[in-house]
Amino acid sequence: MSGTGGRVTIATVAREAGRSISTVSAALNGAPGVSGATRAEILRVAAELGYEADPRARLLRAAHTGIVGVSCIAGQAFQVQLVDGLYRAAREHGHGLSLTAATEHHGEVEGVRGLVRDRCEGIVVVDSRIPYEDLASASAGLPLVVMCRPSPAPGVEAVRSDDRAGMTALVEHVLGTGRRDLVHLDGAGASCTQLRSEAFRAAMEARGLPGRVVPGGQDEEAGVRAVSVLAGRGSMPQALLCYNDHAALGALLELRRRGLRVPQDVAVAGYDDIPVAGVSAVDLTTVRQDVEVLTDTALQRLAERLPCATGRRSRAGGDRPAREDGAPLGAVGAVEHTVAPHLVVRGSTA
Amino acid sequence: MSGTGGRVTIATVAREAGRSISTVSAALNGAPGVSGATRAEILRVAAELGYEADPRARLLRAAHTGIVGVSCIAGQAFQVQLVDGLYRAAREHGHGLSLTAATEHHGEVEGVRGLVRDRCEGIVVVDSRIPYEDLASASAGLPLVVMCRPSPAPGVEAVRSDDRAGMTALVEHVLGTGRRDLVHLDGAGASCTQLRSEAFRAAMEARGLPGRVVPGGQDEEAGVRAVSVLAGRGSMPQALLCYNDHAALGALLELRRRGLRVPQDVAVAGYDDIPVAGVSAVDLTTVRQDVEVLTDTALQRLAERLPCATGRRSRAGGDRPAREDGAPLGAVGAVEHTVAPHLVVRGSTA
Repeated sequence: MSGTGGRVTIATVAREAGRSISTVSAALNGAPGVSGATRAEILRVAAELGYEADPRARLLRAAHTGIVGVSCIAGQAFQVQLVDGLYRAAREHGHGLSLTAATEHHGEVEGVRGLVRDRCEGIVVVDSRIPYEDLASASAGLPLVVMCRPSPAPGVEAVRSDDRAGMTALVEHVLGTGRRDLVHLDGAGASCTQLRSEAFRAAMEARGLPGRVVPGGQDEEAGVRAVSVLAGRGSMPQALLCYNDHAALGALLELRRRGLRVPQDVAVAGYDDIPVAGVSAVDLTTVRQDVEVLTDTALQRLAERLPCATGRRSRAGGDRPAREDGAPLGAVGAVEHTVAPHLVVRGSTA
Repeated sequence: MSGTGGRVTIATVAREAGRSISTVSAALNGAPGVSGATRAEILRVAAELGYEADPRARLLRAAHTGIVGVSCIAGQAFQVQLVDGLYRAAREHGHGLSLTAATEHHGEVEGVRGLVRDRCEGIVVVDSRIPYEDLASASAGLPLVVMCRPSPAPGVEAVRSDDRAGMTALVEHVLGTGRRDLVHLDGAGASCTQLRSEAFRAAMEARGLPGRVVPGGQDEEAGVRAVSVLAGRGSMPQALLCYNDHAALGALLELRRRGLRVPQDVAVAGYDDIPVAGVSAVDLTTVRQDVEVLTDTALQRLAERLPCATGRRSRAGGDRPAREDGAPLGAVGAVEHTVAPHLVVRGSTA
């Protein structure tokens, strides 16, 4: 095909196909605005002519897509907020975003591999539940930033809320209503379980009170189950601080079903401030995570490590200072960026 | 670079880079299993040598990625089930899947354009809320299948549940409990609003009863609001049939908050059978959509229209017959495939 004489350029293809250069370029690059039929025709003409894109330009383009990948767990309302924030932040940073969601039939490893296939250059992993080694292997050496969990390995950047600050503020508020017998329903292995349970215990101990933690979970059923267990034991506390809002909603439903009044008989609090927490018939006290700062920070940390980062660093470190509170914990240790959360007081603890 | 003499093949690159051909191939194609550093080194060597992949193979590959795109609306639990089903079905059909979610800061048009950028060859749009013209323009002529709404234009294939059958079964069940005064809270513009409202009215009229429809919505707040309005008017019916389970949960919460017993004072039903419907403290009667058949059908309809479909049709039409009930409505009209739903009776209407 190279024997047709002279270099076949995109202009040659456009002339032979009777199309504009921009249409041919869009068709060859899979850009929008070209119908399937037109695209097929242009690809056919290009192949017949033996059109070869500049190999170095193609390699360069292949290596610099500017696309960031985001892996999340489907079904948690808070993750929807984070994904929304990441879409917003990616656009502001000038990046495309490819999304994958872990579901019952689609694991995180498979999803991250799909992001690599989709030519992502770096990956943000939200709320991962698999070992770091599996993540690192699936992401094929691309830069990684993890969200909503501690840094899983030396040098891996993590962006998360300051759960100690959030839980402490929540405990102080509930103690401030005069209640003393508080129980935390833990996250049963969810990514921030340990952080929130430890923060609860520490905040209670700081006031000389026992920090009772019982098994909970991260969905409505977990909240229902925990309340049933506590009621069965006759050990219902004055306040239930749940791992997240989903579990708190379940707890609230089950308390009401049993004829217990919220907050008069039992106060209930959640974590995350998902939309249902603010619904008037729920009116749930909770801890709002700062989605805007969390997602801006994650995108910025990732962007600085992308192959196309040259020239962006001054901007990233300059006119857009990170508002996060944290700082690297050490040159060879975990790198964590923690963001301050906000207490949201509503009727469920009034 | 073509002046280096002789054709530079992938073997040349492998030799010069001191890597295996499979590693070089993986690096050039962005496949997993190659570290970022190795990939960068291989790309550098390839560019230096002036390596050119066979342009026809590259064009062919560019035109046949086998990737299907899925656009969904984030935040609805039923969409999580559909996305899970689509991941499963795509794997069974041998396709990769790229996902985009519409969120507050990321519209459907932008998302579908991202799928085109991600080299998808066909797109499944779940529960779209934008005009068809915008979808068609964003998808750049790629094959489209729409889910959970009627076909929006001649020739566009739609896959959805048979809402008439589902709603009729639900109305018959509630009437069977002896209740006569039923109200439907509509979807307030959600994709199946008209289908479900009409089916409710028709089922009631078939029994000689008035089919009262009031404004509702598709989230918890909508259910709370509708119950408040009905209570304010003193026109609370014996049963509330809500557009979906989210709205039904809101209605149930607000009824209980007002001291009304479910189902003794007011029965409540939803639609979709999302996970929270089955939680014991909710125990919601609902209509389960057949996610497996819906997603298999959608993938199959799309797969037959992909450029790589040659040779697959016999399989698609052969050993894996579609279990859907519907049939094309006519050669030039809308093409709709409807799937039978299932009534799930629980305590909220017992």
